[in-house]
Amino acid sequence: MNIIVGQSGGPSVAINASLAGVIQAGLSNPKVDKIYGMLHGIDGVLNDNLVLLNDSADRLDELARTPAMALGSCRVKLPAVETDDAIYHQIRETLEKYDIGCFYYIGGNDSMDTVDKLSSYFAKHHVPIQVIGIPKTIDNDLCNTDHTPGYGSAAKYLNDTMEEIICDSCIYPVKNIVIVEIMGRDSGWLTLAAGMPHFRGKRMPQIIILPEHVFDEEAFITRCKELLEIDSTVIVACSEGIRDKNGEYAGQATKSGAVDTFGHAYLSGVGKYLEGLVSREIGCKVRSIELNIMQRCSSHLASTCDLKEAFEVGMEAVTRSISENLTSVMFGYERVSDQPYEMKVIYHAVSDCANYAKMVPQEWCDTDNKEVQKEILTYIEPLIAGDVPVLRKADGSPDYVVFYRN
Amino acid sequence: MNIIVGQSGGPSVAINASLAGVIQAGLSNPKVDKIYGMLHGIDGVLNDNLVLLNDSADRLDELARTPAMALGSCRVKLPAVETDDAIYHQIRETLEKYDIGCFYYIGGNDSMDTVDKLSSYFAKHHVPIQVIGIPKTIDNDLCNTDHTPGYGSAAKYLNDTMEEIICDSCIYPVKNIVIVEIMGRDSGWLTLAAGMPHFRGKRMPQIIILPEHVFDEEAFITRCKELLEIDSTVIVACSEGIRDKNGEYAGQATKSGAVDTFGHAYLSGVGKYLEGLVSREIGCKVRSIELNIMQRCSSHLASTCDLKEAFEVGMEAVTRSISENLTSVMFGYERVSDQPYEMKVIYHAVSDCANYAKMVPQEWCDTDNKEVQKEILTYIEPLIAGDVPVLRKADGSPDYVVFYRN
Repeated sequence: MNIIVGQSGGPSVAINASLAGVIQAGLSNPKVDKIYGMLHGIDGVLNDNLVLLNDSADRLDELARTPAMALGSCRVKLPAVETDDAIYHQIRETLEKYDIGCFYYIGGNDSMDTVDKLSSYFAKHHVPIQVIGIPKTIDNDLCNTDHTPGYGSAAKYLNDTMEEIICDSCIYPVKNIVIVEIMGRDSGWLTLAAGMPHFRGKRMPQIIILPEHVFDEEAFITRCKELLEIDSTVIVACSEGIRDKNGEYAGQATKSGAVDTFGHAYLSGVGKYLEGLVSREIGCKVRSIELNIMQRCSSHLASTCDLKEAFEVGMEAVTRSISENLTSVMFGYERVSDQPYEMKVIYHAVSDCANYAKMVPQEWCDTDNKEVQKEILTYIEPLIAGDVPVLRKADGSPDYVVFYRN
Repeated sequence: MNIIVGQSGGPSVAINASLAGVIQAGLSNPKVDKIYGMLHGIDGVLNDNLVLLNDSADRLDELARTPAMALGSCRVKLPAVETDDAIYHQIRETLEKYDIGCFYYIGGNDSMDTVDKLSSYFAKHHVPIQVIGIPKTIDNDLCNTDHTPGYGSAAKYLNDTMEEIICDSCIYPVKNIVIVEIMGRDSGWLTLAAGMPHFRGKRMPQIIILPEHVFDEEAFITRCKELLEIDSTVIVACSEGIRDKNGEYAGQATKSGAVDTFGHAYLSGVGKYLEGLVSREIGCKVRSIELNIMQRCSSHLASTCDLKEAFEVGMEAVTRSISENLTSVMFGYERVSDQPYEMKVIYHAVSDCANYAKMVPQEWCDTDNKEVQKEILTYIEPLIAGDVPVLRKADGSPDYVVFYRN
């Protein structure tokens, strides 16, 4: 039997560790012959654009430490199974041509939608190809998993970078406000990680704003003014997708208004919006920092725990889907214990995972509550544990593995 | 004899390594009793706000790996020596009160101006306090030194981050342009470092724009269009301070117009300006990334070479200024050999260093020339060599040393 694997959606630092796990499990499984990679996700199947991965065994360590998708990615939303048979038929033909028994798709919410639809189509048409989802998203917003591969490293980037920004921002004894804009369209998991210095007892970042909060301009300015009475430097950790009481994204006017192929609003500029607001209403020195794609691609700050678990979930997805003859499931993590931290790989029906977003629980939104802070630290700290050295070539540049061509 | 040390200007990752070197040399010098730190640069002297550093011997390693100024910083420009005696008199009184024999000031161009003026005043009034400059700036624009402490680590951040941004930006087979905005008001040293992946033979970043270039909108757009014919992804590494043929900062309209206390234009938004230009003139997918203060405070990407040399120049400044009875000098580096890389600590009259900026040499501005690329790599590669592990507390947070209070 041959297997195929693809990557889809937005990049993370851990998605290639899962790919390395899939390849490793395929290579060690006597039932598996060829391991194909689809280039640019499902587009690689639609365009018959595949690569053979069996020969990459000696590069799995470098692969696991390469940021973003070594196979390339796509943002394809498959049509409803009922409305368009042609595209599914085309996928089926290509997979049958390459004698594929198992199809693995590593991605976030939208990729699980692809897994769900494809497996529904195959079930309906009695096609014996197993379709398996392997989670990935820095956003940590997938259901039925304790956390997502990629979140730990992004959280580590945010934790460390906030500590550095605190050092950088406090050197002048001048009243100033620093706004740090963090990814997170609907859920505040990443911004919680940026709050870790505060939860550990540092004053900063003094203000933490999640999409789960209701943002109020007046309350925000009042709080900034109060804090400036006590502190020279006020640091604000803010999700890109904060909303007002009407559910409108705050600072809508500063945004582009564009939407992606899934209909999500393309956001930018919450930091600039808050910078303008502070400048206008308070008039003190203010700077905004957009952490931008560095929070999802900084493999030099990957967490050991994250890469290790991402590799394991890729491995187990292959091993168990074959031994237990699974299809239409998404693998994930279950936390067995906090202290010592222990995790096991589990799976759920993908239909229970796709298209549902996991928000920060309501009680954790009270980020000034000491008990909540402890719970958040207990949740995140093991996920960011361990530094992963960068593998470098002789000239000092990072040694990355990429399968697609630009 | 007591000595005093201060830090001034903008932050870098290496400035505390130089401070650690000063403390280490002071502790080991039998002629030195107390080592004072001025909090927030010369303001600490003016406000009699000092800290005793002798007890920090067991924390020098943590100190050397702490980003930004552990003593705090200031942006004070002293008046001309002829015009205002009062402030100099006040500085002298405080230094004499603490029995200071040597005054060390770690900073960039503007801090060397302070060293220059203070030593002129002391010379004029026969005050036997030695005044010594220790260089620091990520900008690498100080004269009379092969490079500046702090540049190597910032260059390493740029090299690694560009490699990661390349991975992140190429995953979709969609025509797109990514603009990376890099610090550098007048000189392009940092942007050269961001060009290293290209100089090593990767296509990206295909376009490199320094302040030393004359920026032309039309030529830029034409080049982008040509490249998009060949490549899906075009990456532009761009200095914040690029200028048009009239010497005006490009995209002046998108900037704040504010100036700092030294009269430098406060820049922001060149990335946004080029993003807008591309969007208007080409209409493809475009993203701008401002690397912001992360390029100067990311101690998790410090270079071993940079921290080691920064420590050494701090050490030698103390040891040699005392043994050779020096004053009114700035210490720096002389490159003895490229292969193997060898550097020695030297000094020059500070009047030859202050207020002169070192530009990228004209011949190096031809960044598409293969010979030039080799020379740039030979210059920068040793400076970014070696990874420095982050020292962490038990809870995983970086273990930093800070002497001032917020």
